[in-house]
Amino acid sequence: MTSTYTIGVDLGGTNIKGGVCDAAHQLLSQHTLPTEAPGGFEHVLGRMAQLVDELVERSGMPRDAFDAIGVGAPGPLSHARGIIHAAPNLPGFVDAPLRDRFSERTGLRVALENDANAAAYGEFVAGAASDARSMVMLTLGTGVGGGVVLDGELWRGPFDNAGEVGHMIIEPGGRPCPCGQRGCLERYASANAVAERLAEAAAGGEVCALGSKVARGEAFDARDVLAARADGDALARRIWDETCRYLALCMVNLQHLLNPEVIVLAGGLINAGDVLLSGVRSHFQTESWKIAPDHPDIRLATLGTNAGTIGAAALAHREA
Amino acid sequence: MTSTYTIGVDLGGTNIKGGVCDAAHQLLSQHTLPTEAPGGFEHVLGRMAQLVDELVERSGMPRDAFDAIGVGAPGPLSHARGIIHAAPNLPGFVDAPLRDRFSERTGLRVALENDANAAAYGEFVAGAASDARSMVMLTLGTGVGGGVVLDGELWRGPFDNAGEVGHMIIEPGGRPCPCGQRGCLERYASANAVAERLAEAAAGGEVCALGSKVARGEAFDARDVLAARADGDALARRIWDETCRYLALCMVNLQHLLNPEVIVLAGGLINAGDVLLSGVRSHFQTESWKIAPDHPDIRLATLGTNAGTIGAAALAHREA
Repeated sequence: MTSTYTIGVDLGGTNIKGGVCDAAHQLLSQHTLPTEAPGGFEHVLGRMAQLVDELVERSGMPRDAFDAIGVGAPGPLSHARGIIHAAPNLPGFVDAPLRDRFSERTGLRVALENDANAAAYGEFVAGAASDARSMVMLTLGTGVGGGVVLDGELWRGPFDNAGEVGHMIIEPGGRPCPCGQRGCLERYASANAVAERLAEAAAGGEVCALGSKVARGEAFDARDVLAARADGDALARRIWDETCRYLALCMVNLQHLLNPEVIVLAGGLINAGDVLLSGVRSHFQTESWKIAPDHPDIRLATLGTNAGTIGAAALAHREA
Repeated sequence: MTSTYTIGVDLGGTNIKGGVCDAAHQLLSQHTLPTEAPGGFEHVLGRMAQLVDELVERSGMPRDAFDAIGVGAPGPLSHARGIIHAAPNLPGFVDAPLRDRFSERTGLRVALENDANAAAYGEFVAGAASDARSMVMLTLGTGVGGGVVLDGELWRGPFDNAGEVGHMIIEPGGRPCPCGQRGCLERYASANAVAERLAEAAAGGEVCALGSKVARGEAFDARDVLAARADGDALARRIWDETCRYLALCMVNLQHLLNPEVIVLAGGLINAGDVLLSGVRSHFQTESWKIAPDHPDIRLATLGTNAGTIGAAALAHREA
């Protein structure tokens, strides 16, 4: 018999978030500790173990009431081998055998998953796509991440690297990406790219309410673009509309290749709410065919920053 | 115990191809009959049954040596329900219950599959991707079709419409497609589109060895474009190079979303051989990232026009 409770851990460069989930994927309690990433792999392992101890202690349940720990972590990593190959924000995590070492340390079985996959799986089991069997999630943050769930299973791909939706090319020969490609979705539809594209257009001479900030080299972000858009600024409106169109173009390709029932938008940019959702839906209607009734339902994520914790716990519970 | 032999049927608007396959997916014998499509659904059912009778008779084996018949057919269709919703080249096939009616008629279990999926599955079990677990096939013919196999399973999608690779958008706002979209891969990389794009460029004034044919309104096809290219014609070279690039751009998107081990090119256009394969591989190297070792192996199909028969038989055998 497997236990009813699972711990999810969302390992980031700044904070480690943890939560206790039940078998119905409800988040019963949570706790966060600073990662103290500069301390290196062993130190961070200790921090993670401390977080687990606190979660167990606060739960009032014995340790054997927990069946496993799921860890969502930045990558590239190998789910099958439980190893983080490299993580830019976690110094010393080079081919780090996190799964086995963390399991030794906590006495619990551990599953290691890519953080974008864990978040997608969270929205699949307990969030915006909990009524679907197949979904793709696009996480619009600093970059654009993603996750693919097909018939209830996370699709990782033979190279453990599937779901990199942010590096699908939606503008051939377009904006260069640090990944080495040109025209990646990430270079148009991440929160950073939205601000960057506006700054470039303003620097190129287009009139914009944010023009003086651009001229002074002041930092601003996608929220400022959205605020300018709400105030009727024409350039901000155009940049935002193009962002929605690029997202829709990517979704048309997801539709034809995979036919998912649901596409979920997540990440900081979804704070834009209906301005994002209705913009993307409208462009999807324009760009996609109408000859087959296979349009996915486009939705906003509902779990916020808890998606990764819940998804990691659910994946670990599933493999228990 | 299931039998060792399965019949594959490839139903087209002009011919019905049939073959007997063993459990190792070897095509032991085959036979073809004209479809006589204008006769309508009942008539075509009769033709298909006649083809099966002849295959059984020629095999010298009793009917109960065969476990099932797999039918690859044009769609849209429902695999789960065994119904062809519509087929432009098969008059009268409107919500036609082909699976059950054909099963009644032949006394054998029948599986119905989209013809592009059947062909992809054929290459997966017995052709170019028989060493892989995950693959995507692009069939470059009159149009561009496709099929997706993930971890050994054909991915049909919740709407039975996945693998429509030809309608992935690779040029936003590009050439209009009869499907209602703009910039579909099919409008750049089908055999027809290659000839069309050259004709348009020549009609627009670009110098080309095929210019006089274009001016006289004479028909020509992708083979003529390839011949002109081989003779050093600059426009034919450019059109062909762009075709290879568009295919590569689509493959980069397949790579990042699904991470398949193998991508197979099939259909009439692969008669171009290495001119196609090396062109696509070269553009893929240019367009795709190098930061992860997850490049798919790009290959040409090996089963030719037998892929659909073999794949349909293999799918029926699998479901037996």
